[in-house]
Amino acid sequence: MSLSEEQKEDIKNQRNNFNKTRRSISEGMEENLYLIHKVLDHGFVRVIDYMGNDTSIVQAARVSYGEGTKKSRDDKSLIFYLMRHWHSTPFEMCEIKLHVKLPVFVARQWIRHRTANVNEYSARYSILDNEFYIPKSENLASQSSSNNQGRGDVLEGEEANKVIQILKSDSLRSYKSYEKMLSQENKKGLARELARMNLPTNIYTQWYWKTDLHNLFNFIRLRNDLHAQYEIRVYAEKIAELVKKWVPFAFEAFEQYQLNSSHLSSNGLSCIKRLIKGEDISQDNSGMGKREWKEFCEIIGKDHK
Amino acid sequence: MSLSEEQKEDIKNQRNNFNKTRRSISEGMEENLYLIHKVLDHGFVRVIDYMGNDTSIVQAARVSYGEGTKKSRDDKSLIFYLMRHWHSTPFEMCEIKLHVKLPVFVARQWIRHRTANVNEYSARYSILDNEFYIPKSENLASQSSSNNQGRGDVLEGEEANKVIQILKSDSLRSYKSYEKMLSQENKKGLARELARMNLPTNIYTQWYWKTDLHNLFNFIRLRNDLHAQYEIRVYAEKIAELVKKWVPFAFEAFEQYQLNSSHLSSNGLSCIKRLIKGEDISQDNSGMGKREWKEFCEIIGKDHK
Amino acid sequence: MSLSEEQKEDIKNQRNNFNKTRRSISEGMEENLYLIHKVLDHGFVRVIDYMGNDTSIVQAARVSYGEGTKKSRDDKSLIFYLMRHWHSTPFEMCEIKLHVKLPVFVARQWIRHRTANVNEYSARYSILDNEFYIPKSENLASQSSSNNQGRGDVLEGEEANKVIQILKSDSLRSYKSYEKMLSQENKKGLARELARMNLPTNIYTQWYWKTDLHNLFNFIRLRNDLHAQYEIRVYAEKIAELVKKWVPFAFEAFEQYQLNSSHLSSNGLSCIKRLIKGEDISQDNSGMGKREWKEFCEIIGKDHK
Amino acid sequence: MSLSEEQKEDIKNQRNNFNKTRRSISEGMEENLYLIHKVLDHGFVRVIDYMGNDTSIVQAARVSYGEGTKKSRDDKSLIFYLMRHWHSTPFEMCEIKLHVKLPVFVARQWIRHRTANVNEYSARYSILDNEFYIPKSENLASQSSSNNQGRGDVLEGEEANKVIQILKSDSLRSYKSYEKMLSQENKKGLARELARMNLPTNIYTQWYWKTDLHNLFNFIRLRNDLHAQYEIRVYAEKIAELVKKWVPFAFEAFEQYQLNSSHLSSNGLSCIKRLIKGEDISQDNSGMGKREWKEFCEIIGKDHK
Repeated sequence: MSLSEEQKEDIKNQRNNFNKTRRSISEGMEENLYLIHKVLDHGFVRVIDYMGNDTSIVQAARVSYGEGTKKSRDDKSLIFYLMRHWHSTPFEMCEIKLHVKLPVFVARQWIRHRTANVNEYSARYSILDNEFYIPKSENLASQSSSNNQGRGDVLEGEEANKVIQILKSDSLRSYKSYEKMLSQENKKGLARELARMNLPTNIYTQWYWKTDLHNLFNFIRLRNDLHAQYEIRVYAEKIAELVKKWVPFAFEAFEQYQLNSSHLSSNGLSCIKRLIKGEDISQDNSGMGKREWKEFCEIIGKDHK
Repeated sequence: MSLSEEQKEDIKNQRNNFNKTRRSISEGMEENLYLIHKVLDHGFVRVIDYMGNDTSIVQAARVSYGEGTKKSRDDKSLIFYLMRHWHSTPFEMCEIKLHVKLPVFVARQWIRHRTANVNEYSARYSILDNEFYIPKSENLASQSSSNNQGRGDVLEGEEANKVIQILKSDSLRSYKSYEKMLSQENKKGLARELARMNLPTNIYTQWYWKTDLHNLFNFIRLRNDLHAQYEIRVYAEKIAELVKKWVPFAFEAFEQYQLNSSHLSSNGLSCIKRLIKGEDISQDNSGMGKREWKEFCEIIGKDHK
Repeated sequence: MSLSEEQKEDIKNQRNNFNKTRRSISEGMEENLYLIHKVLDHGFVRVIDYMGNDTSIVQAARVSYGEGTKKSRDDKSLIFYLMRHWHSTPFEMCEIKLHVKLPVFVARQWIRHRTANVNEYSARYSILDNEFYIPKSENLASQSSSNNQGRGDVLEGEEANKVIQILKSDSLRSYKSYEKMLSQENKKGLARELARMNLPTNIYTQWYWKTDLHNLFNFIRLRNDLHAQYEIRVYAEKIAELVKKWVPFAFEAFEQYQLNSSHLSSNGLSCIKRLIKGEDISQDNSGMGKREWKEFCEIIGKDHK
Repeated sequence: MSLSEEQKEDIKNQRNNFNKTRRSISEGMEENLYLIHKVLDHGFVRVIDYMGNDTSIVQAARVSYGEGTKKSRDDKSLIFYLMRHWHSTPFEMCEIKLHVKLPVFVARQWIRHRTANVNEYSARYSILDNEFYIPKSENLASQSSSNNQGRGDVLEGEEANKVIQILKSDSLRSYKSYEKMLSQENKKGLARELARMNLPTNIYTQWYWKTDLHNLFNFIRLRNDLHAQYEIRVYAEKIAELVKKWVPFAFEAFEQYQLNSSHLSSNGLSCIKRLIKGEDISQDNSGMGKREWKEFCEIIGKDHK
């Protein structure tokens, strides 16, 4: 990722420009405002704006005339209570706006989170930059043999080299074709909205993305997860770090009751009761299928063989 | 409406507490933050927080690394362009959070705007205050004889007095009953979630309500309108005043292209073309029904008789 | 609840009118179409229309050209897999439309489920019927002493009688006042949109409510729950019975993985691992607060004293 | 576009399978159910399911116990009234489910309509077919010189041939690379979720897409429009034809009051009033900018030079 001098200047200017406000602020967020947080080879996440902090959650839950509670300890305790009982509306009262640069195939997954506002760089209006995501070799996973939607071992040696070479050369070629089709030297030049269709989905796009804290937690829970594709997970991880600085109490509650929690089915619960009583449980008498049993054992740290 | 001393103090404290921020601010909004803006007899609107200003709209539309354009004149021109072409996503990049006190029957209309975050004062958890909306006599409209969903002339004399008297005494009685049912003096006391059902919908409730600028414009367009019920219209009017101070360019564009604009049907457009050519058009040759013709004439300032 | 002869006739006519369709159907739903299912004293739930069945979920998950899988056993197994992994989009592909009659205070809770389409009977346009919810004495719960948002024991004897008498007489009085204010005998008559504000929230309203199966499951999970108010829970229970007939496989999966499941926090999971190993755990060494520990013990069937 | 024999058989079987239902049906939709309606070179739109018809709109608007009104003429008149006054909720009571095959760059625009349910063919789970959109030469538009986001004249001769050749050969090459990277002959084979990133956005994807009639009208209004990109417009046109057969009254109202209507700004309205009075108006005294004046003249059929 390379920023132009003008872009660097723009960011620096915004960083250096302080205003006086009556609004509540978050120190952790102020420090990060506008900064480029790198993700993948050319991508980034930048916080452009935010609304609210831990206190705002409490304030909203109380429909309060003033700030949250009188003591910060009570604030924390109420936030934990709200999170534990999945009371989502107070968390919706905080809002964040991000500027994200990301490969198109990641954007296609991301956009499925519908409760958000999005302004994407328009390839109908402007010309896309020549920047493509090329995975590092340690991320070149093979297709999983057991899970149609998953990754297996990392590719090695010759095969890995070959893949990287293909991705690089196809990206290069497609971008050259894109430029050729757009070119107006002695020609009319193909419309941008058409020429872009030739570009593969590892090309980078950008957007402004705005959502509330509750829906952001949903995003992190689903994407900062081993089942999520690595290339979106790294964005979710970076965002999680920023949220932790923004609303530390809410983030701690989120980790305790959502991120590191587990859902146990009706069968799972009755197996646990039997296990605690000292019964010997195996898949056969668990009421679960093979794969479900394996998932269950992983949750409770039991050997499933 | 009467605030407790503690509430007044809370508001004053928040007003007097200034922070340093890197975020963009809106001077017009800073001046209004936390203030009580009275609506109806006991209601109010207070701005609790906001995100963004006119510049943020431009910044998002450009997916920019810095602020909007270099010149404020260009910002305005782009905002007008976006509004004229109903490009809504850049306006979604501004957010506002209000604290509103309003009668329950108004809240029931308001909540139909689904794209918003809401935290309402809970009458399951807390006891409602003894505050009811009693219309001023000049707002005691009769049922319209021509429009099932509208108001006619204002009631007069005896009839008006009678109505006010009924509303007052029924409110009083229902609140006394509410207290009686809740009372735990020598009794168990009915659950709050049950006792509240006895209260009429002119009782006041409160909520924190958060939405983006695009959806707020939708709210204003639909509710700051002659077809809206007076009691919600006054809230929309007050909010419109605040938005004007928050994002003056966007609001001016909104007035020009939405609030004071009109929609002309296919038939309406062809009538206009004929009128401009000097043709004499009446309902008979307009292709419109009676009521539609009347509405059309009002839009173009023509006598419809 | 009393239907007019005309309403009974309308329902009967719709029931007797069979059409030929190429769409997939659900036998269990066809049997229930248009029927009145009574809830509370004057309320009801009626299924007006539905889209899809168990097979449609599978069909959508596969983005299929035909029906689901070849064998109904495979359909079931896929549906269970989707539910277990919270893959919600295939369940969104079924839709239901209900006609519901319900007290206004229940409607106020219900409307908070935002992802739904609603058409409510308009009290601006029409006059409301004289029907109020009066709880049965066995549902007259007292305020819980331990939970601000809950119910305690049932009221008894004199106190219960008194409450019922208050609710009845206040309902009666408010409706008479409503009629008086509307009355046009020798008067103008107050506008309906104003007169209605005098009516308490135990009056019944009606609406058409349409949502997809995924969001309906959310509704049932949250409202068919001991923390939900009894008066909305009975609606959720009735709807659950209907959904069971509509999409039996999906409903069974929903019961297994959602309705009768539990969420365990990070601390809860580590306590379970220790309990299975035979450790003795109490609140002191659990990392949980008092109330959280009690909730945890209830989930795993442990005595929490 | 080529269907496999199995796919043809699946469609035929569904077409031939008739069920008995109590639900209301739409004859125009029944005839079209499951059929492939071709769009672009390999794309299509298929109606998989629908809920409701013109009568259902009326039924919902009345919160009715039976069908709509007694006379179909009254139904039509009410539907026109609702559409004219932008009462959207009754139109939300009809629902449609489509199976669509479309190029990825079209899918990226389409998905921005957030109020819809989507199940897309997963390129993490399955291998994409070798089908790419190659525009016909008559659709090879050049970049507009006046509008950054628009198309100008059609490319000709050598330039057009060159573009088609580039698109074809790059598609071919990228698909070969995709297969090579996936290949497991003597190799591990790259994970599908990674290999797909090499494919350009003119490759076809598929999804099930479900939305309500109100939001479908929004989709058609925005996409069946000269400002929309040709490649999504053809889908909107095809869907419009199907909607016309589904709900003929609602579609006629939609054409009259939305599709062929225009929005006039505050300035536009006052210019019209002056024009009707016979005043001579030009851009100079219109209060409009150059481009806005041009748009205004086009709406009222006035020469803008």
